[in-house]
Amino acid sequence: MSKYVIGVDVGGTTVKLGLFTDAGELLDKWEIPTRTEDSGSNILPDIAKSIDDKLTEKGISKSDVEGCGLAVPGPVDEDGVVRRAVNLHWDYFNLEEKASELFGMKVKGGNDASVAALGEAWKGAASQYKSSVMVTLGTGIGGGIIINGRILTGVTGAGAEIGHIHVNDNEQTPCNCGNYGCIEQYASATGIARLARERLMENDDPSVLRSVMAVTAKDVFDGVKQGDEVSIEIAERFGKYLGDMLSQVACVVNPDAIVLGGGVSKAGDVIIDFIEKNFQKNTFHACRGAKFVIAALGNDAGIYGSAKLALG
Amino acid sequence: MSKYVIGVDVGGTTVKLGLFTDAGELLDKWEIPTRTEDSGSNILPDIAKSIDDKLTEKGISKSDVEGCGLAVPGPVDEDGVVRRAVNLHWDYFNLEEKASELFGMKVKGGNDASVAALGEAWKGAASQYKSSVMVTLGTGIGGGIIINGRILTGVTGAGAEIGHIHVNDNEQTPCNCGNYGCIEQYASATGIARLARERLMENDDPSVLRSVMAVTAKDVFDGVKQGDEVSIEIAERFGKYLGDMLSQVACVVNPDAIVLGGGVSKAGDVIIDFIEKNFQKNTFHACRGAKFVIAALGNDAGIYGSAKLALG
Repeated sequence: MSKYVIGVDVGGTTVKLGLFTDAGELLDKWEIPTRTEDSGSNILPDIAKSIDDKLTEKGISKSDVEGCGLAVPGPVDEDGVVRRAVNLHWDYFNLEEKASELFGMKVKGGNDASVAALGEAWKGAASQYKSSVMVTLGTGIGGGIIINGRILTGVTGAGAEIGHIHVNDNEQTPCNCGNYGCIEQYASATGIARLARERLMENDDPSVLRSVMAVTAKDVFDGVKQGDEVSIEIAERFGKYLGDMLSQVACVVNPDAIVLGGGVSKAGDVIIDFIEKNFQKNTFHACRGAKFVIAALGNDAGIYGSAKLALG
Repeated sequence: MSKYVIGVDVGGTTVKLGLFTDAGELLDKWEIPTRTEDSGSNILPDIAKSIDDKLTEKGISKSDVEGCGLAVPGPVDEDGVVRRAVNLHWDYFNLEEKASELFGMKVKGGNDASVAALGEAWKGAASQYKSSVMVTLGTGIGGGIIINGRILTGVTGAGAEIGHIHVNDNEQTPCNCGNYGCIEQYASATGIARLARERLMENDDPSVLRSVMAVTAKDVFDGVKQGDEVSIEIAERFGKYLGDMLSQVACVVNPDAIVLGGGVSKAGDVIIDFIEKNFQKNTFHACRGAKFVIAALGNDAGIYGSAKLALG
């Protein structure tokens, strides 16, 4: 009987690692830098060494470790193959095979947004629910879908790429993905800042946002909390975009929870109000019961999720 | 070792039944009427008797039957509970438990559109693919999503209710579901007929459709095949609605196949052209490779799918 499991979340600058019991108790967490030089060829060996050092420090034998999960910023398909992770300078290769060999244990890989969703489903905001959709509102929009404890991976590892759902036919500026009118262009932190700039230019209505040099999503929701009318209007536009999109996703997945994570979600329950009323309006009755919750694990969602991934 | 499996597709007027080998060979198929009187209380006993009669006729012992799948026109959740099937006059009850008792064998239930998708994934148009989304374009729009051989059921049995994805904020006429602006209002057979009526009233452009008393979806695609400009315009509108919606679904599910079924799909590959170009335009690159195929099993998709459901 293995007693431990390791969860690793590989970011563009930092690798987060966690040592867990197989029941999901976080015993220790630590970080190492992500060395992306030389096509990111040091990243996996660095993680292997860091895991070995930690197990030695704790006096844990490798035979007592069930395995390791690896969350990476890019698609990982069902065969464990990474299909490019730009931030890590990685190209196409079998992540699970290579890491298993280096780490000397079973390794399961997954996309970071999906793995974070699995973490929230296992030990976070969605732990009381059977199926959940997580939307991570950061610089971009990430997505993860968990159905009965398992990630919806997709045939090319691009399941739950809901940040690139098309929502606007009239967009003139391209999204980072090359398409035009992805939800990410309106409801990410960057998108909200853009909605704010556009709204402020529409007329001269007074607003607390006018004294801010470069308005951020946080400024908008701070403005909402102060009752600023223009901030509320911007939040309404954000909520309409995101509520409608999540309504479409709910008709596909029929989840019982929708988890809101990422930097924008730090504004708290106030964002739910703007999203949920639009969601309720357009969602098919049998899918309308999904509960909105704010992510609970913060930056640890990735290590929790990857630990769960390794446990299967 | 069981050698046989039974697939049953319960419709509002007819119950279709199929006897299969466990390898999926259809040995016999037959029908009985659906008796919806008395709150549909005769339906399951009628099916039980019909199965017994068939097994007797064939000299097959019940112990040689793996089980029976039941497709019903309504949501069936993961616990086998039907949550109302209006056409059968059924309310809320555990379909699998009740039918297992009556049939004297293991029974698995599922929503008919999802089960049809499973049939196509098992022995039909999507049998070469890992994950598929099926959209059934009939009077309404049904949906089924198969991921690695399993139905995406949803927590209330309403997974893949993609006919009720909201696509139009300006709709004044309610959908059958009570919401406004569901895709079903534009891209079902009924929806296409409506698009045709609206287009014909816009101006006096000549069209072969003007000699038709009540234009149907079939008339529109017949017109397209004759090169009728107005018919082509109507088909373009249909393709834009459906291509955009399927693009959204593909970003969620990341399937490798999209199966088009139902009456409208009988027009053949011509409908793919109108849908796919819109799909390609707006779909995230990693999800864009999904292949469009026309359903292959016709009205037998339900019995094939329910047989597969019973096999697990």
